[in-house]
Amino acid sequence: MGTEGYATENNELDKWGFKPNRDLTAASEITVRGVLTTLLGKVDKDDKRSIVPLGHGDPSAFPCFRTTLAAEDAVVDSFRSAKFNCYAPTVGIVPARRAVAEYLNRDLPYKLSEDDVFLTLGCLQAIEVALTVLARPGANILFPRPGFPYYESRAAVCGLEVRHFDLVPERGWEVDLEAVESLADKNTVAMVVVNPGNPCGCVYSYEHLKIVAETAKKLGILVIADEVYAHLTFGSKQFVPMGVFGSIVPVLTLGSISKRWIVPGWRLGWLVTTDPNGILLKTGMVDTIKGYLDISSDPPTVIQGGVQQLIENTKEDFFLKIRSLLKKAADTGYDRLQDIPCVTCPMKPEGSMFVMVKLNLSKLDDIEDDVDFCVKLAREESVIVLPGIAVGLKNWLRVTFAIEPSALEDGLDRMKAFCKRHGKKQ
Amino acid sequence: MGTEGYATENNELDKWGFKPNRDLTAASEITVRGVLTTLLGKVDKDDKRSIVPLGHGDPSAFPCFRTTLAAEDAVVDSFRSAKFNCYAPTVGIVPARRAVAEYLNRDLPYKLSEDDVFLTLGCLQAIEVALTVLARPGANILFPRPGFPYYESRAAVCGLEVRHFDLVPERGWEVDLEAVESLADKNTVAMVVVNPGNPCGCVYSYEHLKIVAETAKKLGILVIADEVYAHLTFGSKQFVPMGVFGSIVPVLTLGSISKRWIVPGWRLGWLVTTDPNGILLKTGMVDTIKGYLDISSDPPTVIQGGVQQLIENTKEDFFLKIRSLLKKAADTGYDRLQDIPCVTCPMKPEGSMFVMVKLNLSKLDDIEDDVDFCVKLAREESVIVLPGIAVGLKNWLRVTFAIEPSALEDGLDRMKAFCKRHGKKQ
Ligand SMILES: Cc1ncc(COP(=O)(O)O)c(C=O)c1O
Ligand SMILES: Cc1ncc(COP(=O)(O)O)c(C=O)c1O
Repeated sequence: MGTEGYATENNELDKWGFKPNRDLTAASEITVRGVLTTLLGKVDKDDKRSIVPLGHGDPSAFPCFRTTLAAEDAVVDSFRSAKFNCYAPTVGIVPARRAVAEYLNRDLPYKLSEDDVFLTLGCLQAIEVALTVLARPGANILFPRPGFPYYESRAAVCGLEVRHFDLVPERGWEVDLEAVESLADKNTVAMVVVNPGNPCGCVYSYEHLKIVAETAKKLGILVIADEVYAHLTFGSKQFVPMGVFGSIVPVLTLGSISKRWIVPGWRLGWLVTTDPNGILLKTGMVDTIKGYLDISSDPPTVIQGGVQQLIENTKEDFFLKIRSLLKKAADTGYDRLQDIPCVTCPMKPEGSMFVMVKLNLSKLDDIEDDVDFCVKLAREESVIVLPGIAVGLKNWLRVTFAIEPSALEDGLDRMKAFCKRHGKKQ
Repeated sequence: MGTEGYATENNELDKWGFKPNRDLTAASEITVRGVLTTLLGKVDKDDKRSIVPLGHGDPSAFPCFRTTLAAEDAVVDSFRSAKFNCYAPTVGIVPARRAVAEYLNRDLPYKLSEDDVFLTLGCLQAIEVALTVLARPGANILFPRPGFPYYESRAAVCGLEVRHFDLVPERGWEVDLEAVESLADKNTVAMVVVNPGNPCGCVYSYEHLKIVAETAKKLGILVIADEVYAHLTFGSKQFVPMGVFGSIVPVLTLGSISKRWIVPGWRLGWLVTTDPNGILLKTGMVDTIKGYLDISSDPPTVIQGGVQQLIENTKEDFFLKIRSLLKKAADTGYDRLQDIPCVTCPMKPEGSMFVMVKLNLSKLDDIEDDVDFCVKLAREESVIVLPGIAVGLKNWLRVTFAIEPSALEDGLDRMKAFCKRHGKKQ
């Protein structure tokens, strides 16, 4: 819009033959980072209080969430060795691939080898690779709603048609499997399952995941299991990797060190074929993954060089500490949310770093929708919360509880004051 | 092929609806790493001599090419600070963008700001971004021949039509500007200039670059200046950045720390709008670049966190040492190549890490072409050299001289023995 204004204003520009690729504009329209940046821009600069970031899943800035020294040492040793300054094989270096395979084997009934592991730039690039290798003319893919908007963006870039099945709040945000069955047709290639869940904070049971696998098998589709929040659970259910059901249905497992080690800025992730029957190999998917990685960017060799030591040297203590911090934050967050008028929270979070909260618009006076709520909340209270529309659920909110406890309490208190102020008077 | 064999053998596979995206296969068919891996597989395992890698541009494994301690310290300090464990803005963190802007400003007649700098995963991702944002239906782009095959791969992925202009060996591998003019039409969006040159080892003069800029301006196309080898010059000509002519024609400057600091495994690069007239901003290109970066993978924050210190603390001594190592290697390499029968080397390299060598097939007995030459050389002498076809020039070779001096001499001696053995007897 600004662009076209300029072009007519200034016909100097007419002589240039290049124009931006407009397809990309649509694909990048909604991103979590984009929405949060916009909201940050609404904050009142005169507000003396600090901004409370309940929008994004990155607690690394808070001292209590600092990663373990063992992880820092691992990567620093890699730098100091000068052995990993070189280009890496596009699939990743063998010791790092093997270390990830062994790490995942702790929870699987069969053994992965290093050949099953492809190292990526965080889980984000694993998503890019998974969707890109599956895209072919006419293909469609099933995503959960609410979901993680990066999936939508990458599907748009590679031309995959997207169909959404619901997650059901009344059933702990489980997958609506009837919807999955009715959406799938012969051009459906895969369904995505995010567990532990972003944005819902849910953790799926063994039984539910097994039925998901059986449904996918029946439909002849792959399961893409986004387990970037693996092991970040603190409710009644343990984390069960989807790969446990890899002999029912081929699974592409996506993960990273970003969340469990609280180092999203290190950008080390993986795409793993958890597929003991070798179906992904036999159908040529593995070769296509390798081919695409050959022309993609790799995670820095020098970070790959630290992975083995990082995994081996991290003590259980560190994981326990992080889980108990998250549990306390989730408890506090849930309790305080109960106390806030005009919102309801259908389920106490049991994993990941988020909880979904429903707005009762009918009880709010001058709030149009979730975006309006978040804009006004940012402006009046310097509290940043993600509007549900960004994750596919209009008039909900996604609240991050993974921040410093005192900041969380402060943020929710401000949200309460905000809701009281904007609530309808009877 | 193996794939289809399996599928009929095993109709178990028929029930799965997903198939690999075949378009990617073509795009990743020729990559430097792919060809080199194949050649490595040809080496005779019983050969007691060590393999001489004259194929790829990565001297980091050789102790004499170890990066400066100042660079290691910079990144280690970033890890130890724990300030950069977080996600970064998708365009990069401000201090790193500013440091790169100031670094490039040393050689420019105007001032870049941090807003002109977009941090990428090495220069490779900068190439991906540049081509992707320019791709629109029907657009074409002009690449040099010989060139860097990654450009071809990424153009294939984003559907840009590629046209090739020649680099002219008799004129120091300068751009054939008449060819550029005759190839361009109203759908041409850009031309690529790699300087210092890979694979040719050439360095372009101020005058030549100026005519390139004027030609591009006349044609209304952008210049993509790949300067990943910036400052790695050791002949009569100084490195001149294309951005010097940014007021004649908008330039996208691509670069990285990979080559000058000899740390390709750190994956830190940039795409920079060297465009003082702001044409890229006004035409909406800058917004499209940002949009695409929003849905792309970023360089690790923790490496970005070290960039400012890395640039500020690297002493001129280190750069001088590397240039003098490269100069000696280039001299030695060129002298020895003169001495090898059946090959000719039209120009002594003046920059980068490579030299192009022409095969005189008529003087060789049982060598079919460049690929056959390289396969047999790998098998018989454990020397790896890149066949010219991989860079677009059949029956040439690309020889890396940027390795340890004694290994280089050894490798070229073996190549000489090989050529003597395979030369026609008169
Ligand atoms: C569901 C989901 N998948 C993937 C990612 C990306 O993780 P990474 O930092 O490993 O790229 C995130 C990050 O928030 C996420 O929430
Ligand atoms: C011409 C050219 N451009 C770009 C690159 C990629 O460099 P980087 O390691 O910064 O991604 C290379 C690497 O060899 C190259 O030769």
